[in-house]
Amino acid sequence: MQQLFSKPSFLVDENKCRRNIATMIAKAKKHHLIFRPHFKTHHSIEIGRWFREMGTDKITVSSLDMALYFASDGWQDITVAFPVNWLEIDKINQLSAQINLNIIVESIETIEFLGQNLQNDTGVFIKIDTGYHRTGISVNNTSLISELINEIKNTSHLKLKGFLAHNGHTYKTSSIKEIEEIHLASLRELSKLKANFQDKRTPLIVSIGDTPGASTMNDFEGADELRPGNFVFYDLVQEQLGSCSYGDISVVMACPVVAKHLDRKSIIIYGGGVHLSKESLKMQDGKQIFGKVVYLKDNGWSDPVQDCYLSSISQEHGVITASDSFFNSINIGELIGVLPVHSCMTADLQNAYFNFEGKIIPNHRS
Amino acid sequence: MQQLFSKPSFLVDENKCRRNIATMIAKAKKHHLIFRPHFKTHHSIEIGRWFREMGTDKITVSSLDMALYFASDGWQDITVAFPVNWLEIDKINQLSAQINLNIIVESIETIEFLGQNLQNDTGVFIKIDTGYHRTGISVNNTSLISELINEIKNTSHLKLKGFLAHNGHTYKTSSIKEIEEIHLASLRELSKLKANFQDKRTPLIVSIGDTPGASTMNDFEGADELRPGNFVFYDLVQEQLGSCSYGDISVVMACPVVAKHLDRKSIIIYGGGVHLSKESLKMQDGKQIFGKVVYLKDNGWSDPVQDCYLSSISQEHGVITASDSFFNSINIGELIGVLPVHSCMTADLQNAYFNFEGKIIPNHRS
Repeated sequence: MQQLFSKPSFLVDENKCRRNIATMIAKAKKHHLIFRPHFKTHHSIEIGRWFREMGTDKITVSSLDMALYFASDGWQDITVAFPVNWLEIDKINQLSAQINLNIIVESIETIEFLGQNLQNDTGVFIKIDTGYHRTGISVNNTSLISELINEIKNTSHLKLKGFLAHNGHTYKTSSIKEIEEIHLASLRELSKLKANFQDKRTPLIVSIGDTPGASTMNDFEGADELRPGNFVFYDLVQEQLGSCSYGDISVVMACPVVAKHLDRKSIIIYGGGVHLSKESLKMQDGKQIFGKVVYLKDNGWSDPVQDCYLSSISQEHGVITASDSFFNSINIGELIGVLPVHSCMTADLQNAYFNFEGKIIPNHRS
Repeated sequence: MQQLFSKPSFLVDENKCRRNIATMIAKAKKHHLIFRPHFKTHHSIEIGRWFREMGTDKITVSSLDMALYFASDGWQDITVAFPVNWLEIDKINQLSAQINLNIIVESIETIEFLGQNLQNDTGVFIKIDTGYHRTGISVNNTSLISELINEIKNTSHLKLKGFLAHNGHTYKTSSIKEIEEIHLASLRELSKLKANFQDKRTPLIVSIGDTPGASTMNDFEGADELRPGNFVFYDLVQEQLGSCSYGDISVVMACPVVAKHLDRKSIIIYGGGVHLSKESLKMQDGKQIFGKVVYLKDNGWSDPVQDCYLSSISQEHGVITASDSFFNSINIGELIGVLPVHSCMTADLQNAYFNFEGKIIPNHRS
C-alpha cells in the first residue's frame, strides 16, 4: 500500500462496504421495508452497482444532477429527497420522461408551480418534519398537510406517494435509548398521519431513513420504506452514536507524513480540510477532533491508535497529536490512515476513490 | 442574474477582485516587498492571469499539483509553501526542470532525502514557527536552524533562499492591536534570525504572508516577501478580523430558495456543506453562523441583510434564520446570495466559478 499512493487518497474497503450493504438489505427485508438507499454518501456509479448486484433497484439522491448521474447508469426508480428547486424544472421533466421519478414538496406554491410546468407523471412525497426542524411540514400540522394532499390530487401529473421524513435529530443524541425515543415517536406520528389520509384509492408510503435509526433499531412498525445513506461507509460520528463499530468503517484517508515535531509530539500530514472536510467531533473527554489515526496495512488498516487523533486541520495540513509510541513508530515519507469524522463530506471532496490495489473507483466528480 | 443560475453557483465580482489585487500589489510595492501571492484561495488560471496583467510574476501554492497546474499556464517562479512530501519527489524534479521552484524544509531527514533524490537546482526555504504551532521549527531553536542551514549548504541542488513563516495565529485574534503584536513580534524574531545567518555569499529572504497581517499592518520592517492568499476574495472571517469591509468581499454563493417556514421564520436554500463548506463563525452575540445573507442584483449584491444569517447547514440544505422583512421579501424559486465564512474552503469545493453574465471562470477542478 505504501508504494501506491503519493498524496491524500480516499481508500474504500470493498469487502466492508459490501458487508454494510448486505447487512442493511437484510434488515430492510426482515422488517418488510422497501429499501431505497440514499446514494449521496458514495456518489459513485461503481459503488451503486454493488448495491444493484445485491438486488437494490430503487434509490434516493439529494440533487437532480445526482439523479441524472445515476439515471445514466440505468437506475430507473429515483427519489430526489430535497425540496423541489423550481429553477431546475427542466431537469425534472427530463428525468420523468426517462425514469420513475419521485420528488418532494412542502408548499402549495411549489405544487402550483409543478401543476403549471410538469410534462410527465411524477411521484410526490410530502416532506414531514418529525422534530429535526430542518425543513418539512410539522407532523402535527394536519390542516396544511390536508391542503397539500388535496392540491396534489387536483394537479395533473402529480402522483401522491406518501410521507417522507428524516429523523436527523438522532445525530444529536448521546445514547441508543435517545435514538429509540426519536425513532419510535416519529413512527407513531407518521403512522397516525398515514391512517388519517390513506384510503383505498391512495395507498400511502411512510419513508424514513437516518442511518443511526436504521442501524440501531429493531422496530420499524409503521414505516414502509428505509432510505439510509451513510451506512455504506460509516464514520466516527456513527461510531460515537453507536450505529457501527470501528471495524464497520469502510473508508480511510491515506495521508503522507511530511514533518514531525518532537517538542510538541505532533506529526504533520499532507491531509487537510480540502481532503477530509473540516467536520469535527467532540470526544467524551471534551477534545474536538478531526479524525482518528490508524496504521495502514496491505489489505486494510488497524483499529484507531490509542491516544492519537487529528487535533487540528487547515487547508492542506493536518496536525496529529501523537502518543510517544506512535510518534516513534512513524517516519517522514510514510503513509498513515485517518478515519473521517463525517464520510459523506469527505467523500464529496474527492475526485475519485481508490481500492487497495490503487485502482480508481470513479465518483460523480471523476 | 435570477435567470442565469439554477443551482448553487459561486460568483466572482471581477472588479472587486481586481481591486483587492491592485491594493495588495500597491502595498507590497510601498514597503519594498517581493510580492508572491498565494494562489491556493482562487486556484484558477484565469484569476491568476488578472494578477499577471498587474505585474505579478512570482506565486505561492500549497501543493505540487497546484504548482504543475499554474506552471502549465506559464508561471515560472513558484514556491510550494508546504513541507516537502517525499512521495511526490518526481513532481518536484519535473517542476524544477521547467521553472524556478522553491520548496520548504524543516528537518534534516528531508534535506538528506532531497540530497539523494533531487535532479535539478531547487530553492529552499526553512519553515519557521513564529507561534502558530502548526508546523515549522521554533524561531528560537537556532541550533537546529543552524544545523539545517549547514546541511542545506552541503547538499547539491539545494539553494538556500531564506526563512518562511505563516503567522496563522493572527486568525485567532479579536483586535487589530493583537494582530499587530503578533506581526511585529514575528518580524522582530525573523529579522534576528536573518541577521544571525546571513552572510555576503548567502543573502536571505524573510517571507511572511497571512492575510490579516498583510491587510491591516503598515510596518513590514524586517520582511522581504509577502505571500497573502485569501485577500483576493476575502470573506466573513476576514471582515470580523478587520482585514476588510463587507464591500471588499468579492465572492458570493448564489442559492435557490426552495422552502419557507413561517412558524420558525426560516428560509431553506439549496446550498449546503458541499457548496459552502461547513466552516462556521462565532458572532459577537455568541451565535454560530455559516454565512450571511445578501440580496443579489444584476451586477453585484447588497450589504448583508440585518438579522439574517445561515444558522445551520447540512449536505445540500442551508437554513436561513430570517428577519420578518427578509422573510416576506423572498419567494420560493428566487435566488439569494450567501457570503462565505471562509472563501478558500468554499472556492475549493467548486467545479468552476461564474461571472455576473454566467460565463465560467475555470478553476483547478474544471
